[in-house]
Amino acid sequence: MSDQLTGASRLYPIIGDPVRYVQSPVWLTRTFAERGHNGLCIPIEVDEAGLDAVMRGLTAAANVDGVLVTMPHKNAAFAYCATSDPRASVFGGVSVLRRNPDGTWHGDMLDGLAFVTAQQARGARIEGSRALVVGAGAAGSAIAHALLDAGVAELALHDADQAKVTALREKLAGPGEGRVIEGSPDPAGFDLVFNATPLGLEPGDPAPLDVARLTAGMHVGDVIAGHGTTALVAAARHVGASTADGGHMVEAVQELMADFLLGRLAGS
Amino acid sequence: MSDQLTGASRLYPIIGDPVRYVQSPVWLTRTFAERGHNGLCIPIEVDEAGLDAVMRGLTAAANVDGVLVTMPHKNAAFAYCATSDPRASVFGGVSVLRRNPDGTWHGDMLDGLAFVTAQQARGARIEGSRALVVGAGAAGSAIAHALLDAGVAELALHDADQAKVTALREKLAGPGEGRVIEGSPDPAGFDLVFNATPLGLEPGDPAPLDVARLTAGMHVGDVIAGHGTTALVAAARHVGASTADGGHMVEAVQELMADFLLGRLAGS
Repeated sequence: MSDQLTGASRLYPIIGDPVRYVQSPVWLTRTFAERGHNGLCIPIEVDEAGLDAVMRGLTAAANVDGVLVTMPHKNAAFAYCATSDPRASVFGGVSVLRRNPDGTWHGDMLDGLAFVTAQQARGARIEGSRALVVGAGAAGSAIAHALLDAGVAELALHDADQAKVTALREKLAGPGEGRVIEGSPDPAGFDLVFNATPLGLEPGDPAPLDVARLTAGMHVGDVIAGHGTTALVAAARHVGASTADGGHMVEAVQELMADFLLGRLAGS
Repeated sequence: MSDQLTGASRLYPIIGDPVRYVQSPVWLTRTFAERGHNGLCIPIEVDEAGLDAVMRGLTAAANVDGVLVTMPHKNAAFAYCATSDPRASVFGGVSVLRRNPDGTWHGDMLDGLAFVTAQQARGARIEGSRALVVGAGAAGSAIAHALLDAGVAELALHDADQAKVTALREKLAGPGEGRVIEGSPDPAGFDLVFNATPLGLEPGDPAPLDVARLTAGMHVGDVIAGHGTTALVAAARHVGASTADGGHMVEAVQELMADFLLGRLAGS
């Protein structure tokens, strides 16, 4: 990375609030370097009141080729996209933007695809499988959409807030093609079991589903990253299930971001 | 520098058009690192039409603590300063901005001070000396002001465009206190002889003044950087005069920029 920062560097800011703890400036910049591209991911801290000014400024800068978007701007930044992938438009949220040939922004939401890619890299078979997703917020929505894209046979959704499940099922009616059903905290009978709730962020958090019903043939994935082994992942490993945690997703997202920003992501 | 780019980095963009060849991203970032500060100077390429959007965006970003300004924005960026040093306000131009405690910008023009500092580091005595500055454009103006600040006894100005000399003498009437006079291309009788014209940028350029009249006791400085030894500097060295070239000025400006941006520049 030491030779990356020059006057000729292309810029890929990550906008968020806070940005102090984001890893993309280190990881994505390293990924660009490994690919021989003089690109820098730089942190830009901006609150909701300042987002419009920052987005207009980044749009006017000729050496800004992409923008990574993190909390709390994933929905608001969608408004700056002239074009977008269905992954983004179905929920009106983006995780990354790149330039169209005319300088406008093309948006995508790679969180769900990164999660699914990480599961596959850890041994999960998605196509034709039955999946349970617990948590129907932003993370669960992206993951559910990506699972349908990847060809799950059946997708069960569960959330303590029933209204979120109902709303998500409506949004997935098109891509779901009748494959989306109501789930419960019971994972019995599913091939794939995923946590997309915040449970696991705090040390004493309970598991988000009934871990006593996990079995060896399942694959279990968790969105929680950077907080050690969660109760869910520990229980899954205990019964011999394959697992992937949020750290694996974070690794996968760097590669996908680089693919997308350099125009090499298939189908986007 | 390799450990500098993180989510917690403080940003000091350099805005210009083009920025491909600017050295500050490398040099100033290295200077910050040497001082133990996690600060990055990143290049932002923006044209005159986009300047307002970029300045508003940088102002809204909470981790942008300063802005370096290069061509063609030195005059236009002055309008974004709530406060400024007299070095900047006398000409209405800035080379660098830093935050005031209320988040507004304080501007300064360090080009002239950097030039004078570089001359002093190479042996020039400024206070009480007689100086000739050839070239009364932006560079010559900043250098003339800095020489008066540093205590020259007499300052002679020459430019092929007489109107520029007249305009500069008017702007320097206050700080000049009667010390500013009309000069000519003849350096005879001066202690300090400085080129602030573009002559020397091209390989076949003639010297900007009558080099046959240079003598061993003089100090000769040139603003031209990055184009090898100029005809002026070569002639000065030939007669045994002390010299400083534009490269020495560029080095000096990095230290002054870091001092200013970290709030340690005396009197600013």
